Amino acid sequence: MSCGLDQNANIEKAVQQIESAAQQGADLVCLQELFASRYPCQSEDHLRFDLAEPIPGPKSDRIATAARNHQVVVIGSFFERRTSGIYHNTAVVFDVDGSEAGRYRKMHVPDDPLYYEKFYFTPGDLGFVSIPTSKGDLGVCICWDQWFPEAARLTALSGAEILFYPTAIGWVPAEKDEYGESQCSAWETMMRSHAIANGVFVAAVNRVGYEDALEFWGQSFICDPNGNILVKAEQDQEETLLASCNLAQIDVVRTHWPFLRDRRIDAYDGLNKRFLDDQ
Amino acid sequence: MSCGLDQNANIEKAVQQIESAAQQGADLVCLQELFASRYPCQSEDHLRFDLAEPIPGPKSDRIATAARNHQVVVIGSFFERRTSGIYHNTAVVFDVDGSEAGRYRKMHVPDDPLYYEKFYFTPGDLGFVSIPTSKGDLGVCICWDQWFPEAARLTALSGAEILFYPTAIGWVPAEKDEYGESQCSAWETMMRSHAIANGVFVAAVNRVGYEDALEFWGQSFICDPNGNILVKAEQDQEETLLASCNLAQIDVVRTHWPFLRDRRIDAYDGLNKRFLDDQ
Repeated sequence: MSCGLDQNANIEKAVQQIESAAQQGADLVCLQELFASRYPCQSEDHLRFDLAEPIPGPKSDRIATAARNHQVVVIGSFFERRTSGIYHNTAVVFDVDGSEAGRYRKMHVPDDPLYYEKFYFTPGDLGFVSIPTSKGDLGVCICWDQWFPEAARLTALSGAEILFYPTAIGWVPAEKDEYGESQCSAWETMMRSHAIANGVFVAAVNRVGYEDALEFWGQSFICDPNGNILVKAEQDQEETLLASCNLAQIDVVRTHWPFLRDRRIDAYDGLNKRFLDDQ
Repeated sequence: MSCGLDQNANIEKAVQQIESAAQQGADLVCLQELFASRYPCQSEDHLRFDLAEPIPGPKSDRIATAARNHQVVVIGSFFERRTSGIYHNTAVVFDVDGSEAGRYRKMHVPDDPLYYEKFYFTPGDLGFVSIPTSKGDLGVCICWDQWFPEAARLTALSGAEILFYPTAIGWVPAEKDEYGESQCSAWETMMRSHAIANGVFVAAVNRVGYEDALEFWGQSFICDPNGNILVKAEQDQEETLLASCNLAQIDVVRTHWPFLRDRRIDAYDGLNKRFLDDQ
């Protein structure tokens, strides 16, 4: 979806789409990253901390209520105010009764021109988690996490059967002609690779529309544990994507492409180093 | 390349192609996995251990000589006899003077119908390494390693600027119509993702041709650190692929997509576990 300046309107649109998805048979609904507002990190502005709320709080309560009202699991992405001076980019999973099934705080926080997230978001301290729900064991990673195979691996090894990536990524218009297609391809390739390497379903949920200097590129998709794209959205239109994910496929894929069987866990110690220049 | 039953003919063809590549300006040449013979692992047959040789040995000496004669770095892939009962699937990097710059023993060893490698190959014990040469710091992983993000990450963190993947992967003809395209796409996607996640060049070097129950699918490719494919071979023809890799691009990509900066090395301990069901 796209977002405007009116937070209530954004939230109302999200709630309506949750209802619409539920009516179309959805069991699990994932909203885009920070769906309640325009993407707040294009500049470093202390006033934007006012967008944040504790969790639970009014915004998360509205999504919890929508989950309960429509009997769907909902993954919402919020600007969380944890205490004075500690804010997170946080995803919350609400079960069908509106209760909080679990939460994830964005672990990998970017900092690039127009994506000044390190200014706003304290790095997550909950690790990579699988969140059990009445509709399956879910993993949530957030946007920048999608570029890190470690995040997907640890979430899958924790038991998640579907990895959700609420996202806000777009083109800088001046770069779009030269690099736009390559950027989108890299983005999709990384998440498809997480599906393949881990034998899980992956759902990427991105924003659309222009906001100041960014054109969010949409192209949300859901892929199966072989990385085959099941459904994919346009780059410039709001859409509610639906796909049926047969979780029994996971074991079939993992026994036919038995990567988890063959990991060399005796040889991975270097993964918790920055660089191996001391060897 | 394809391989026949005559090992000398296979080796001679490889040597000719090294010469041809060098004449076309190649600095680095990578041969396919186990280029000296047909793929030996379609069944479990003790007689096939006779294909193996120590390194250095006659086969590796011929490749070392070709490297020296044509002043190119060559990556050769050999069935290594290390001692009685310990055999490896080993890649050796020869520098332009024919000396051994380094070697890598396949760490992830598959075992699937028609790929019975666990019968033949003792898992590698040299870890994931960067091999300095006069033409750059190279990483070599071998075939099944390509499905493991950990292998690419550790090799890149060791300093490798180009990851080479000597490979022998193909279709089971009965599955090709239904799954063939998806299998090739997954294979290419994984290695492109290694390029993207690590900001390195990747070169995948696969076999072609029919051997018993397998149709090797070729489609060797070289991609840049954004995962853009620079050159790609056909699925059914022998080809010598050449691409120019500007190693200065690596730092540009890694500072514009600064994934290595943001890895959460404080949170990756679980990567050396099989599964995180005890958390």
